[in-house]
Amino acid sequence: LDYEVIENYAYREEQAQRGKLYFAYYVAVKWFFALLIGIGTGLAAVFINISVENFAGWKFSLTFSIIQKSYVAGFVVYILINLVLVFSSVYIVTQFAPEAAGSGIPEIKGYLNGIDTHGILLFRTLIGKIFGSIGSVGGGLALGKEGPLVHIGACIASLLGQGGSTKYHLSSKWLQVFKSDRDRRDLVTCGCAAGVAAAFRAPVGGVLFALEEVTSWWRSQLMWRVFFTSAIVAVVVRTAMGWCKSGKCGHFGSGGFIIWDLSDGQEDYSFKELLPMAVIGVIGGLLGALFNQLTLYVTRWRRNYLHKKGNRVKIIEVCLVSLITSVISFGLPLLRKCSPCPDPELNPGIECPRPPGMYGNYVNFYCGKDNKEYNDLATIFFNTQDDAIRNLFSAKTIHEFSAQSLLTFLVMFYSLAVVTFCTAVPAGQFVPGIMIGSTYGRLVGMFVVNFYKKLNIEEGTYALLGAASFLGGSMRMTVSLCVIMVEITNNLKLLPLIMLVLLISKAVGDAFNEGLYEEQARLRGIPLLESRPKYQMRKMIAKEGMSFLF
Amino acid sequence: LDYEVIENYAYREEQAQRGKLYFAYYVAVKWFFALLIGIGTGLAAVFINISVENFAGWKFSLTFSIIQKSYVAGFVVYILINLVLVFSSVYIVTQFAPEAAGSGIPEIKGYLNGIDTHGILLFRTLIGKIFGSIGSVGGGLALGKEGPLVHIGACIASLLGQGGSTKYHLSSKWLQVFKSDRDRRDLVTCGCAAGVAAAFRAPVGGVLFALEEVTSWWRSQLMWRVFFTSAIVAVVVRTAMGWCKSGKCGHFGSGGFIIWDLSDGQEDYSFKELLPMAVIGVIGGLLGALFNQLTLYVTRWRRNYLHKKGNRVKIIEVCLVSLITSVISFGLPLLRKCSPCPDPELNPGIECPRPPGMYGNYVNFYCGKDNKEYNDLATIFFNTQDDAIRNLFSAKTIHEFSAQSLLTFLVMFYSLAVVTFCTAVPAGQFVPGIMIGSTYGRLVGMFVVNFYKKLNIEEGTYALLGAASFLGGSMRMTVSLCVIMVEITNNLKLLPLIMLVLLISKAVGDAFNEGLYEEQARLRGIPLLESRPKYQMRKMIAKEGMSFLF
Repeated sequence: LDYEVIENYAYREEQAQRGKLYFAYYVAVKWFFALLIGIGTGLAAVFINISVENFAGWKFSLTFSIIQKSYVAGFVVYILINLVLVFSSVYIVTQFAPEAAGSGIPEIKGYLNGIDTHGILLFRTLIGKIFGSIGSVGGGLALGKEGPLVHIGACIASLLGQGGSTKYHLSSKWLQVFKSDRDRRDLVTCGCAAGVAAAFRAPVGGVLFALEEVTSWWRSQLMWRVFFTSAIVAVVVRTAMGWCKSGKCGHFGSGGFIIWDLSDGQEDYSFKELLPMAVIGVIGGLLGALFNQLTLYVTRWRRNYLHKKGNRVKIIEVCLVSLITSVISFGLPLLRKCSPCPDPELNPGIECPRPPGMYGNYVNFYCGKDNKEYNDLATIFFNTQDDAIRNLFSAKTIHEFSAQSLLTFLVMFYSLAVVTFCTAVPAGQFVPGIMIGSTYGRLVGMFVVNFYKKLNIEEGTYALLGAASFLGGSMRMTVSLCVIMVEITNNLKLLPLIMLVLLISKAVGDAFNEGLYEEQARLRGIPLLESRPKYQMRKMIAKEGMSFLF
Repeated sequence: LDYEVIENYAYREEQAQRGKLYFAYYVAVKWFFALLIGIGTGLAAVFINISVENFAGWKFSLTFSIIQKSYVAGFVVYILINLVLVFSSVYIVTQFAPEAAGSGIPEIKGYLNGIDTHGILLFRTLIGKIFGSIGSVGGGLALGKEGPLVHIGACIASLLGQGGSTKYHLSSKWLQVFKSDRDRRDLVTCGCAAGVAAAFRAPVGGVLFALEEVTSWWRSQLMWRVFFTSAIVAVVVRTAMGWCKSGKCGHFGSGGFIIWDLSDGQEDYSFKELLPMAVIGVIGGLLGALFNQLTLYVTRWRRNYLHKKGNRVKIIEVCLVSLITSVISFGLPLLRKCSPCPDPELNPGIECPRPPGMYGNYVNFYCGKDNKEYNDLATIFFNTQDDAIRNLFSAKTIHEFSAQSLLTFLVMFYSLAVVTFCTAVPAGQFVPGIMIGSTYGRLVGMFVVNFYKKLNIEEGTYALLGAASFLGGSMRMTVSLCVIMVEITNNLKLLPLIMLVLLISKAVGDAFNEGLYEEQARLRGIPLLESRPKYQMRKMIAKEGMSFLF
């Protein structure tokens, strides 16, 4: 990959020959492509979300209707549906698009740093990523669809930049304007931003993510175009959501796109609360660094022993993981004793237990039918991740979860996320990270509620801070993560608190290892050039450097 | 100014000699300085705001109590107070700190681009800027205190980087760690971000402002430290505001720091509304470009003819401007007929006319005392700018202002802002820009309300979009402006609309001229190096380039 334009004599001659008209055409095509990337990524995101919500919604409503009669039959059906979905995902990925596995962000980061990993931006990768994500997320694995969306945006951008895919005869001559790698790199940057903007409905967060996490080089002009792309994505997604409101999208309703509204959350915070919040930051840094380290070991082991044995092993592995996930998420809530519902007179507006098949809190799962009871573990475990997070973030539901359930869930889900990482399916780490973080955040929140009795504290706010801290401790982003968290929770008042927690968790995490994407990129043999030499390199000479590499 | 560290042999020798301990100390001092910058800028911002609010509040309450008896006496007192405040400001600036005039952002931009303008970051400039701002803003001129705050943040940062001011014996040896210009540059970047964060209580906006508008060079490491500084500012400001809530800060109450809460504004928007919003964008681009052009002429004329004649001319000029401003802002509302208050039964929660001396809408000014009447022009004109904007942004007050009043105000304030620009007082263009923009935005909003009768439209939302469009058309910022607008209005739902308006207004403005800061920087002879050569330069050879410069 030629990183910068090579300014040789021939190039300059050519540039001089072209007139103003060509230049105007060139700029216009750039903007037109930015528009197309925005529309394409937005539509892809809407398609994936509608599919996932429909599969998952259908799965849960079917299971719920069966367990009214028999829990064993429900269990079998639940496992089978998950298995089929996950199998379809891993089959697509292993047979057609091996590059679509994983989150894709480390590879994109490498690409923008100047390393073109083979096959990472092909048309088949795009297709594999889209359908693979639907299967793996719909199948209830402990992974998210946000990382893949970034990759999808980058793929769309790169394909446009090449003028289509030549292999599948989808190319067109007049689109092949961009001959320099720099232009293509700019387009891929736009695609990344569009991916984040579409994944979280966070346009500003998308721009910042592209800026902070992905690119190595940045120009002010580019920011402007990236911003435009994100705005287009926001408009496309919003239009599609409006269209879905009329009920044409099946189960895709309130559960749909991630926005965990916290705007009726905690209004104010006192200085006393800063200590537990700092504790959350420290926990986030520790657990995040541990997560990076564990996934590093798991990935290395997989690469060196397991994945060398061919595709069949990969498929069996993923199916096993799916089986374990299904058993745990169905079985553990069964063992949990049900809790009585809160007094409806003291808590108006809470529906408990909720009617089966609807989204919401207070799931009745293996509880007495006539008693007003709910299963707090099932509320978070036996649910789509989006809904589980919504329940964890929810305000005005103090003491909904018991500490025991949260701890069980934390340990189980953390292990599942580590095991699922780097299997041969498209997988993002954002939503699992938010799940893990909000669980221990809510735990800390519960202790705070019990400790300072009189303060106006919402456990959901602590869950949000926990989520921010875990992501900060694992991915080591700052500004972009902060903006994304604010945009998805729709509450600006928590901004200083999120900043505080992120600062602590990143600092703690940095004491142990590097960020998730950097570690993974290095493992895949993608060297990321840093903008500044490290301190140890000061005294190095070229010979030592070479011996270090080989 | 040495832009990058010069890596010669001696430097590398020195670096190699120092041990790990020195390196740790060096990093620790960097973070400690970032902390100090945050605290210093935050305190400066609080000090300026409290002073301005107290002066202005005292001025208005005195005038109001006098006009209950005699309008002539009130008029004289009003003019005199303004004159004294403005005179003190211009006296400080001309006598002690000539570099403190203007907004300072072009100079800082030049500094971070590698040009050290003489005296721009001295201790006396800092002091002149702080006290000058209090006088000029408190004196009711058509300028803001936000640009100066950015300059103040940069001054504090630079002084810390030098280890104090040697001239005034405030320096200290052990602080003089930073010998390279790069470290100093990084600190100044932190200071800029702190300034914006303090001015608008917008920490993320501050980081983005430093990134997008001010710096020419950016490292990912730096972002992290800038983010930390902004977070500190947010904490300092919040603490001070909490302390002021107990009533210890005089008039500094609800009027205080800029946050124009729009969270109870418009909930949704329909596609029909996109057209008038696009119109707002176009108007913003046109008026913004016109503003840049007019101020360019005015500044050039001032520099070439007026300001060469010495300080006395400068002082007289500012006093004249103050006189004109006072006469217009007091006199025009007198000529305006009062409007009857809205029916209190249909509009509960509106106090009309408001009791004198309090902040709020519906000012009774030269109206019958017993009738329920208010003066809509006085509501925006005879008020501090912060309060005027709050009134313009206010929701649930449809038909408060008449089109005639808004037009009068728009023309008058626009002219005043142009005339006031580049006088010898510290002056920011943010708040005047928001004033101008929100006025025509509200005008468009009124037409929309009249045209589409049934939609749930808030005029305040249009006012906000107008403000964004004017700033976009004048300053040509995108992402940072967007985030700042969202942070000050506390309403994330309007983000896509603000993006849309900004895109249009920037595109329209770019068709005419460059951004405000670039134009001003060029006028001051600060050459800003662009990151990429312009198209015309492709064919240039060095000889032509030289002849172009001289």
